[in-house]
Amino acid sequence: MTFKDELGRRAAEVEEYLVTCLRGRGTPARLLESMEYSLLAGGKRLRPVLVLAWNGLLGGETDKAMPFAASLECIHTYSLIHDDLPAMDDDDLRRGRPSNHKQFDEATAILAGDGLLTEAFGLMSAASIFKGLPADRVLRAIHVVAGAAGAGGMVGGQAVDMEFTGRTGVPLEELKTMHAMKTGALITASCECGAILSGADEADIDNARRFGRNIGVAFQIVDDILDVVGDTATLGKPVGSDEAMGKSTYPALMGLEKSKSLAKDYVDEALTHLSGYFGSEQEFLWQLARYIVDRVY
Amino acid sequence: MTFKDELGRRAAEVEEYLVTCLRGRGTPARLLESMEYSLLAGGKRLRPVLVLAWNGLLGGETDKAMPFAASLECIHTYSLIHDDLPAMDDDDLRRGRPSNHKQFDEATAILAGDGLLTEAFGLMSAASIFKGLPADRVLRAIHVVAGAAGAGGMVGGQAVDMEFTGRTGVPLEELKTMHAMKTGALITASCECGAILSGADEADIDNARRFGRNIGVAFQIVDDILDVVGDTATLGKPVGSDEAMGKSTYPALMGLEKSKSLAKDYVDEALTHLSGYFGSEQEFLWQLARYIVDRVY
Repeated sequence: MTFKDELGRRAAEVEEYLVTCLRGRGTPARLLESMEYSLLAGGKRLRPVLVLAWNGLLGGETDKAMPFAASLECIHTYSLIHDDLPAMDDDDLRRGRPSNHKQFDEATAILAGDGLLTEAFGLMSAASIFKGLPADRVLRAIHVVAGAAGAGGMVGGQAVDMEFTGRTGVPLEELKTMHAMKTGALITASCECGAILSGADEADIDNARRFGRNIGVAFQIVDDILDVVGDTATLGKPVGSDEAMGKSTYPALMGLEKSKSLAKDYVDEALTHLSGYFGSEQEFLWQLARYIVDRVY
Repeated sequence: MTFKDELGRRAAEVEEYLVTCLRGRGTPARLLESMEYSLLAGGKRLRPVLVLAWNGLLGGETDKAMPFAASLECIHTYSLIHDDLPAMDDDDLRRGRPSNHKQFDEATAILAGDGLLTEAFGLMSAASIFKGLPADRVLRAIHVVAGAAGAGGMVGGQAVDMEFTGRTGVPLEELKTMHAMKTGALITASCECGAILSGADEADIDNARRFGRNIGVAFQIVDDILDVVGDTATLGKPVGSDEAMGKSTYPALMGLEKSKSLAKDYVDEALTHLSGYFGSEQEFLWQLARYIVDRVY
């Protein structure tokens, strides 16, 4: 089995849970349809896979951590729905289909996002009741996720990103901070809460957090690079055209080659936090980290 | 001290906590400003006051339950910000000031709402860590709040309300269900989670829930009545003009007098769930329930 097959197998396991996790909670039909339209639109399920892999690496059971895995995907999905809104990035398409507010309407899209965010906390808080996880662990994990998703994390990062748009000459440090909040925080929280739920000690939780933080940055740099490289290959747009759109990116700020090498450095740093572990989950996380940066080499 | 003085004293106690509860969490300045603009815009603080009164009635400490009290106000505030958006009710004013998206901009208002909702769960999950409440109680209370605020509760109710707008002849039963979700669920959850946090037994928690459910309905009926009566008095609009706006209300569906008497019935039913208790918190809750309906008599 290749790494990509294994990633697909794990994503399919998450998918199976996602398909039913919003049901049976009294949600009006059209709202549920809208929430599931976006939640079940595919995607790599990176965040849930990270929750489960770190949980498994440190001795946790997949079944028990699954509500958290699903919650992180719910939160990620809500952020995409709200980011696509006309008042935000105004995107009509998402994953090759009409974005939520195009398929439904703006009010429904706002509420679908609000619903997914709230249901995420419903799922997480039920993990103790229905899965028998210790309440203090679950509570700590919820606190980590709330901090990462909130105004000092993902939501704050999106606010800063909106302020950056159209502004030229954003310093690299500010760009890094924005990305650490907007995308990095939730990726980090995925690893960290997987570790917390397993009952691991502080040193292990710290490794999970640092692994997450580093692949989060690498992931963002690679995303920026693929924007440029992808465009050049498929549309023939010149390298650096994102800059003209008023968007600060790593390639725009430091060039393509330096960006690639920086992404590799972050992945290498992430891998140091895996070096003390063994077994299939360690192997999987190692390859996942490598996979992020391999896409641009 | 009159009941209104006592209500004001309790609201001021909540206010003191609200003023600082969003600080120190790394929120970008403008986003924090926007969140606090709406959170600190006054209001009766009904939900926090209910949390604390039920908590106190059943032996809980105010200081420990305060993060939950604040969280319920954060959730209520976020719902008002999102409801006011152009895609929803499109209201330019809220409590006599520009609504959030008018004072800031639409993107900021969406994110301020998202931030308040997420921070609410951050505050609640920290209540065990910083206030020493038992984790299982806190987790159960979070689960109750998430259920009430989510797609099967408040968010779902707003979705149904949007579907109702402009539709004539909405049956009374459907109107009741919509209100029970949109406003009733969070009021009920306020009472219930106050009881849960105090460590009360199931019978007490059930009383809190039923008290909340009944005053929630009464509160909505009175709101509908005040829309009509208030308008007639101040603007000279005829009774029933809301009907012309395509909005189903209790007075429109059953007339003013029958609505008043129905509100009174719900308050009387609520009071039966207080009859077994004694002391200052019982007295306060009793008067609070009476106060709701007294406004239209």
